[in-house]
Amino acid sequence: MFKKILIANRGEIALRIIRTCREMGIKTVAVYSTADRDSLHVRFADEAVCIGPPVSKQSYLSIPSIISAAEVTGADAIHPGYGFLSENAEFSQICADYGIKFIGATAEQINGMGDKATAKATMKEAGVPVIPGSDGLLESIEQGKELSAEMGYPVIIKATAGGGGRGMRIIRSEADFEKAWNDARTEAGAAFGNDGLYLEKFVEEPRHIEIQIVGDQYGKVCHLSERDCSIQRRHQKLVEETPSPIISPELREQMGAAAIKGAQAIGYEGAGTVEFLVDKHGKFYFMEMNTRIQVEHPITEEVTDFDLIKEQIKVAAGAEISGRNYTPKLYAMECRINAEDPGNGFRPSPGKITVLHMPGGHGVRVDSHVYTGYTIPPNYDSMIAKLIVSGQSREEVVTRMKRALQEFVIEGIKTTIPFHIKLMDDPGFQSGQFTTAFLETFDFSTLK
Amino acid sequence: MFKKILIANRGEIALRIIRTCREMGIKTVAVYSTADRDSLHVRFADEAVCIGPPVSKQSYLSIPSIISAAEVTGADAIHPGYGFLSENAEFSQICADYGIKFIGATAEQINGMGDKATAKATMKEAGVPVIPGSDGLLESIEQGKELSAEMGYPVIIKATAGGGGRGMRIIRSEADFEKAWNDARTEAGAAFGNDGLYLEKFVEEPRHIEIQIVGDQYGKVCHLSERDCSIQRRHQKLVEETPSPIISPELREQMGAAAIKGAQAIGYEGAGTVEFLVDKHGKFYFMEMNTRIQVEHPITEEVTDFDLIKEQIKVAAGAEISGRNYTPKLYAMECRINAEDPGNGFRPSPGKITVLHMPGGHGVRVDSHVYTGYTIPPNYDSMIAKLIVSGQSREEVVTRMKRALQEFVIEGIKTTIPFHIKLMDDPGFQSGQFTTAFLETFDFSTLK
Repeated sequence: MFKKILIANRGEIALRIIRTCREMGIKTVAVYSTADRDSLHVRFADEAVCIGPPVSKQSYLSIPSIISAAEVTGADAIHPGYGFLSENAEFSQICADYGIKFIGATAEQINGMGDKATAKATMKEAGVPVIPGSDGLLESIEQGKELSAEMGYPVIIKATAGGGGRGMRIIRSEADFEKAWNDARTEAGAAFGNDGLYLEKFVEEPRHIEIQIVGDQYGKVCHLSERDCSIQRRHQKLVEETPSPIISPELREQMGAAAIKGAQAIGYEGAGTVEFLVDKHGKFYFMEMNTRIQVEHPITEEVTDFDLIKEQIKVAAGAEISGRNYTPKLYAMECRINAEDPGNGFRPSPGKITVLHMPGGHGVRVDSHVYTGYTIPPNYDSMIAKLIVSGQSREEVVTRMKRALQEFVIEGIKTTIPFHIKLMDDPGFQSGQFTTAFLETFDFSTLK
Repeated sequence: MFKKILIANRGEIALRIIRTCREMGIKTVAVYSTADRDSLHVRFADEAVCIGPPVSKQSYLSIPSIISAAEVTGADAIHPGYGFLSENAEFSQICADYGIKFIGATAEQINGMGDKATAKATMKEAGVPVIPGSDGLLESIEQGKELSAEMGYPVIIKATAGGGGRGMRIIRSEADFEKAWNDARTEAGAAFGNDGLYLEKFVEEPRHIEIQIVGDQYGKVCHLSERDCSIQRRHQKLVEETPSPIISPELREQMGAAAIKGAQAIGYEGAGTVEFLVDKHGKFYFMEMNTRIQVEHPITEEVTDFDLIKEQIKVAAGAEISGRNYTPKLYAMECRINAEDPGNGFRPSPGKITVLHMPGGHGVRVDSHVYTGYTIPPNYDSMIAKLIVSGQSREEVVTRMKRALQEFVIEGIKTTIPFHIKLMDDPGFQSGQFTTAFLETFDFSTLK
């Protein structure tokens, strides 16, 4: 087992990793920028090394600074957390070159999954369902119609240079194809100076469902079921839950098996997540694979009793897993508490926390690095706490979450707590029947 | 279901009950003495009524004040928590007379279990093992020897007027009987002016094991396994855990069945606890029954996923239970964090909490009513928080507890945290092999 782990991260995830290392009897090294001097991860680690100024490029993203810190302190492993260098192939490779165990994926795996086209091709070859579509650009209306007839409508055409919805059209029948094609082409040409279009099957009423997997160094991979991350605002997850209200045991088994196949195809070791879109017919399509621990990993911990950071460290040190899969024994949900003003476009609200009272009691877990008197620096991600609630039914979890949110007192800054309270009261959310578009029609105006 | 519950208590248990009521959509009424104006239970309840001065007799023990508060606010039920009026037969009866549901035992049950001799006789008749001994006072050495031969040595003779170990002798063989009898008699006569002695089987290397039961109004009783409360200082529990390291599945089944038999014998409804002594041979003996929720109930919640306060409220409202018993799926432990100085005879240390940081993360629960800036009044019990930890093995729980204790920052007062940290490091404690006498030889001097 490792003797000393350097944690190349900050905030709640750094503290989260320190907690597990302590429980495993492993020494820890925190690294910090000058903006994070007063952070709890610095206080609770066995050693702490200042690695630079607030600018991430010169501190949390500076590979030389972090490798030096590991060398100086004699750390034999590095845990990158999420974000920052966690999916940086170069960093993974340099760690390997220096004989420091990187607790994450290899450079090859990170590169393979980081490039979307390669990832999709790899998964398709491994037999994981991917969103069907044209191989590259469409050459003609006729080719588009042919392919669409094969896949079945609705389909979507997208500008290859596109973004923000421009040059994009959903097509529901062949009769609409020509007009949509011409409109999208004109729009794309005008907007991007490139009128190339490609075609995909349109995923109807999608939900974002991800499967947690863990692989060991001996080729065994198991899954720990799904997390439903459909509650998103501009592709930012705000609430996650497990089990998903729309996943049947059969679908869980199919998606779990697909995720395992995909991970085994790249010889994956460690904790990872395979993200899928699931349409209203219960069909699922590979989106991407995250070769790191996820922000929302605690809900899986609450329903399976595993400590996923411990599992990461154990398999990185060579432990073998049983290969058994795990299904939720309970229900769990996470609300991301961000220092943002939900009544004002989720504008960041850094500053000093003058009063802090965290909720407690049965079924309530808080992962957070802040405290009364802590000043949230403006330099980083605005997440200040994860409120994780578990219970015997989804209904119990929703009511418990609301109770816990109401108990959560944070003064001095704006937070997303009022948004979450309103969400817990929303009948559409309570029903469990929603798509990734749910928040597009949510009324944030009352949160002003 | 009840519309509004008055909580006739203070501190963490009042807050604990409010939490569950909120999750159940039941309105709450807090009552408080003038010393508790700033308590969180007052802030989080839907309504709050001041019922008197700090002296408990004139507030938390004042039946007229509490009944008035219930009448004025229109509460249809009262939850008494633990301590105070929770096992007061008169209060239970008066609630019944006023048509307010007392969430606890009936006056008859409280009286029956409150008197130790009656309780023992009732349990014996119901077939629950009780500590064998003389029926009342011993009449002669010969009678003592006869009875001891029947029960088997060791036995213990105790002064009927005794206390503090005086007039008490453990006898390990018949040869020692006469001398012990004479010595105890002389000592008792000199100390208490009463040389009456009674005899009991001596319970060797006892552990304090209690069984949590829940009964409904239709005669069904189930058990939720045991809690091991052997870590005590002067009969005050400091640490509790479940499952007990010394209880086998067979013994759990036997003790669970005995507890259910005892509860059914008195038609028990609600949550209750049957306390046993278990000797080194795995024999168990009834000690007493607590007709209320216990301080240490959360460890049972963590390993069975039940919310015991919710169960209490549900059965009080007439819900039926399944009758199924529950065994621990995990391991859990509770440390009582008291405002006491463990290096100085556990002397109370009331005062203002200047800095408070509570631990969090996977497997950590805190039940507490205090916050940064809160002043602990000197009038009440010194418990300020319950730190509850769960995990997949006892070893994981002990290391996690130590980690959580080290994270727990309370400044401005002395607390029992240093004691608990030392306990978690103690090989004897870690082994799981100890008796209720464990703390008698514990070295508290290093905690100065």
